[in-house]
Amino acid sequence: MFITLEGPEGSGKTTAVKAAVAKLQELGYQVVQTREPGGTPIAEQIRNVILDKANTKMDPRTEALLYAASRRQHLVEKVWPAIKEGKIVICDRYLDSSLAYQGGARGLGVDNILNVNLFATENTYPDLTLLFDIKPELGLERIAKNSDREVNRLDLEKIEFHNKVRQTFLDLSKRYPDRYIVIDASKSIEEVQKATMDAILARLCK
Amino acid sequence: MFITLEGPEGSGKTTAVKAAVAKLQELGYQVVQTREPGGTPIAEQIRNVILDKANTKMDPRTEALLYAASRRQHLVEKVWPAIKEGKIVICDRYLDSSLAYQGGARGLGVDNILNVNLFATENTYPDLTLLFDIKPELGLERIAKNSDREVNRLDLEKIEFHNKVRQTFLDLSKRYPDRYIVIDASKSIEEVQKATMDAILARLCK
Repeated sequence: MFITLEGPEGSGKTTAVKAAVAKLQELGYQVVQTREPGGTPIAEQIRNVILDKANTKMDPRTEALLYAASRRQHLVEKVWPAIKEGKIVICDRYLDSSLAYQGGARGLGVDNILNVNLFATENTYPDLTLLFDIKPELGLERIAKNSDREVNRLDLEKIEFHNKVRQTFLDLSKRYPDRYIVIDASKSIEEVQKATMDAILARLCK
Repeated sequence: MFITLEGPEGSGKTTAVKAAVAKLQELGYQVVQTREPGGTPIAEQIRNVILDKANTKMDPRTEALLYAASRRQHLVEKVWPAIKEGKIVICDRYLDSSLAYQGGARGLGVDNILNVNLFATENTYPDLTLLFDIKPELGLERIAKNSDREVNRLDLEKIEFHNKVRQTFLDLSKRYPDRYIVIDASKSIEEVQKATMDAILARLCK
């Protein structure tokens, strides 16, 4: 069982999933929580190239290919082996993030990015994708609260970008209704946790 | 004008093109000779990940994506700017190498590798591809001569692999007859040089 978490920073997805993991373990499931590059050395080397601040000349398509390469290696070394052992793998962000950020918001085209990622993943879609949906303004407010800083002009300029990300995610939830569950992340943490748990348990009992 | 050189080590492509470059410069053309990663720092960082001997767990698809990423960055930073300035760019190996080695010989599928590379290159095919075609046995013999070592068992085991590479290149020459010129690299260096020059001049006068 392969579950992915999608949604912006400030959507509370990490907190929300914690309770679900504890509950799953109580029920006797073995759970692997991961995120790319997931501690696999090759994927980390690739990630270092992406994140190297000196690499200001990196082209967006180069970046997209590097994300796909890192994803591939993480799948091969970590996700697939765990699934094969019958574990539940919960991955914080996966191909839908590339579709939303690079395909949608950066304008490279969702289907272009999907094609590259279908090659990378050999068509490995998650069994369940939990989209923690929240207005960018609200997500930013939460981040600001947690970090004791005010939302600044730069944050606000980014809102248009984050609106595009959000819209692409919502479009994807309609494109892949069988694997997507949209969780209203503007609600209270208790409500979001409950919705997360319900979605995972419902998928497990399918 | 974008010219690529394809063919195995030992096919004499580097030597053959030297004379052509000198002749082109005599004729007043500005020529840029390059090969991936072509001294572009990001493409070199990517190449280092591919070639790192410690990375024994690298999956073939990860490798293919990294080659495509390196190719992209080399195009953006080096090839396209030179072409825009009216220069002739001669690149030692390009996407056809990925198609032949990873697509054909490693069995990832020519069209799979092509799709990833069309994304990487935004459909940038060379104007002219010179395929220096030679039987793997003969290419190996030449390498052995130059390096004062005998052809060993490992080399011979690789012949099947190199036969697949060669066959894929020949298939590609039929798939893309407009841009491919196949040069019989088993002939004398003078004949190969002449064929190289003729092919380039013919393409320039088109």
